[in-house]
Amino acid sequence: MRILVDVMGGDLPPRELVKGGVAAGHKLNIDILFSGEQGVISSALSALHEHEGNRFSILPSSQIIAMTEPPVQAVRVKKDSSLVNGLVALKEHAVDAYVSPGNTGAVVAGAVFIVGRIAGIPRPGIAVIIPTVSDREIVVIDVGANVDCSPEHLLHFALMGATYVRDVLRIAKPTIGLLNIGTERAKGNKVVHRVYELLADGPLPFVGNVEGHHLLTERPVDVVVCDGFIGNVFLKTLEGGISAMSTMIKNGVTKSLRGKFGGLMLRPVFSSIRKKLAYNRSGGAPLLGVNGSIVIAHGRSDAVAIESAIDVAYRAVECKLNETMAKGMSGWDENGR
Amino acid sequence: MRILVDVMGGDLPPRELVKGGVAAGHKLNIDILFSGEQGVISSALSALHEHEGNRFSILPSSQIIAMTEPPVQAVRVKKDSSLVNGLVALKEHAVDAYVSPGNTGAVVAGAVFIVGRIAGIPRPGIAVIIPTVSDREIVVIDVGANVDCSPEHLLHFALMGATYVRDVLRIAKPTIGLLNIGTERAKGNKVVHRVYELLADGPLPFVGNVEGHHLLTERPVDVVVCDGFIGNVFLKTLEGGISAMSTMIKNGVTKSLRGKFGGLMLRPVFSSIRKKLAYNRSGGAPLLGVNGSIVIAHGRSDAVAIESAIDVAYRAVECKLNETMAKGMSGWDENGR
Repeated sequence: MRILVDVMGGDLPPRELVKGGVAAGHKLNIDILFSGEQGVISSALSALHEHEGNRFSILPSSQIIAMTEPPVQAVRVKKDSSLVNGLVALKEHAVDAYVSPGNTGAVVAGAVFIVGRIAGIPRPGIAVIIPTVSDREIVVIDVGANVDCSPEHLLHFALMGATYVRDVLRIAKPTIGLLNIGTERAKGNKVVHRVYELLADGPLPFVGNVEGHHLLTERPVDVVVCDGFIGNVFLKTLEGGISAMSTMIKNGVTKSLRGKFGGLMLRPVFSSIRKKLAYNRSGGAPLLGVNGSIVIAHGRSDAVAIESAIDVAYRAVECKLNETMAKGMSGWDENGR
Repeated sequence: MRILVDVMGGDLPPRELVKGGVAAGHKLNIDILFSGEQGVISSALSALHEHEGNRFSILPSSQIIAMTEPPVQAVRVKKDSSLVNGLVALKEHAVDAYVSPGNTGAVVAGAVFIVGRIAGIPRPGIAVIIPTVSDREIVVIDVGANVDCSPEHLLHFALMGATYVRDVLRIAKPTIGLLNIGTERAKGNKVVHRVYELLADGPLPFVGNVEGHHLLTERPVDVVVCDGFIGNVFLKTLEGGISAMSTMIKNGVTKSLRGKFGGLMLRPVFSSIRKKLAYNRSGGAPLLGVNGSIVIAHGRSDAVAIESAIDVAYRAVECKLNETMAKGMSGWDENGR
């Protein structure tokens, strides 16, 4: 297996991302193709006592798409960027999967233009894997690929999310919930009302509405479906609530001697929570519904985060996720299999 | 001043809510009219060594609107409910303000049908006052009165939110932000794009887009404007993030002796944070844009929460908020005054 890593468009320098790619290559025993400036990647490899060869190779490019560039325009104009070159390599099957910590909108736009959608799936969706209070994760789709979704789009997010959870996370008979503002069927806006009908009438394992306040503590479902605007607000607000509380604790701990002592005692607890909740900096979010395995890593990804994003891509390729997804609703029977 | 309290539709028993009303009546030196079952309220007053009179009076009713009832239908059918009777009393100026911990949808629907909208304001909005890491609060509007908003509705939420913050919270030159999924102007869906234009061209003190992850830590603005579906997801997700982290800390603390000891040391810190972040159980959310002062208390409100919701209503009446709001955009000049 060969996985491409775009090392140019993230917030951290390419050498940090090359380090993550090298670690993943050795750990998973796969080849890594680094997309970006030849010289920069080459010297990053040397610094790690690696050299260009089959295991670690370079796809040279002369342009970089920045985080703030308008996605569609950037993809159209910067034809020799690491982001675009990588997608072309994926399209041409030179690699089995693609990982980028770059401009999310540009990756989504480029994926649709260059790699193309899976037949029968109207819009791709970004799935994010979120840890909960229990040790089992929850998948939320879409968290930002689409911001003006029709009910049919959400129906397909459900299909993709459920397939991902079943085949990649290996949760048998996964359940699907619709992100809403109340659990009763009548709650919500016009779009979610229609999505509820579509899901209730379809073959997917839909269990009803879910709400933001109980998702992480009660974990009522395996997959949460929502419009990309809502999902993105959800994801960032979750991060906001957690970071507000962390800041308050930090302020309280440093304010008195007693607080400092308590903070010292609880250091292992805080550190394990921080690790668990750092989903925004680790892992990677698969872009589902396009004709290739694409994982969007967080912009602030460091080497560890890139390594884990490559692992997410590796697992999607391993279980031939896209082939299953292309079967559509017919891939599901009434028992959620 | 006389404020009405609907004591029947909350999650806690009426005697708990009467207790909050009695405390507020004494503290603020105002009259309280309790809406609900005569006998129940009467005995609750007796238990508190109070009696029916000018200070504490009763508006009797024979029906209760439950939390799960479909709002519009409930308001139409249950004409002798504590919720509806209270709104009629507000409409007829028998009271200066109205507080209810009952079915939010029913309060909103009843307010529009019975009390009516302020001329020029197309839709009322629920404003919620949220504590931040700094000691200054932030107001988010709408958090659930409307779930299919047009851009013009959000423009009016901005007007109402800014007026509330300026006149009730007494923040001079308040700033307004639009809840979005990125700070750049081009981010977001069709509705927020249009809202951005309307706000940028208008007289209100608009500063741009804001996101869920930095609102509580950086407090970039005084007022956050959003569609009620989005705002409700925002509010519940914030609660979800905080409660997930609390649960994880609790689990970590109880797992070892060291943890238990650290937890004991940090008890004052945790308790002050809990108090600060319990916005879901305390205070009250003003319903802005209707012809009367209405405050929606949390369904789980106890006596303290009801007392604080009455205080929110009291302050809105004191500063003649609705009269200012009726002046519309003309009440604002380019200096945010």
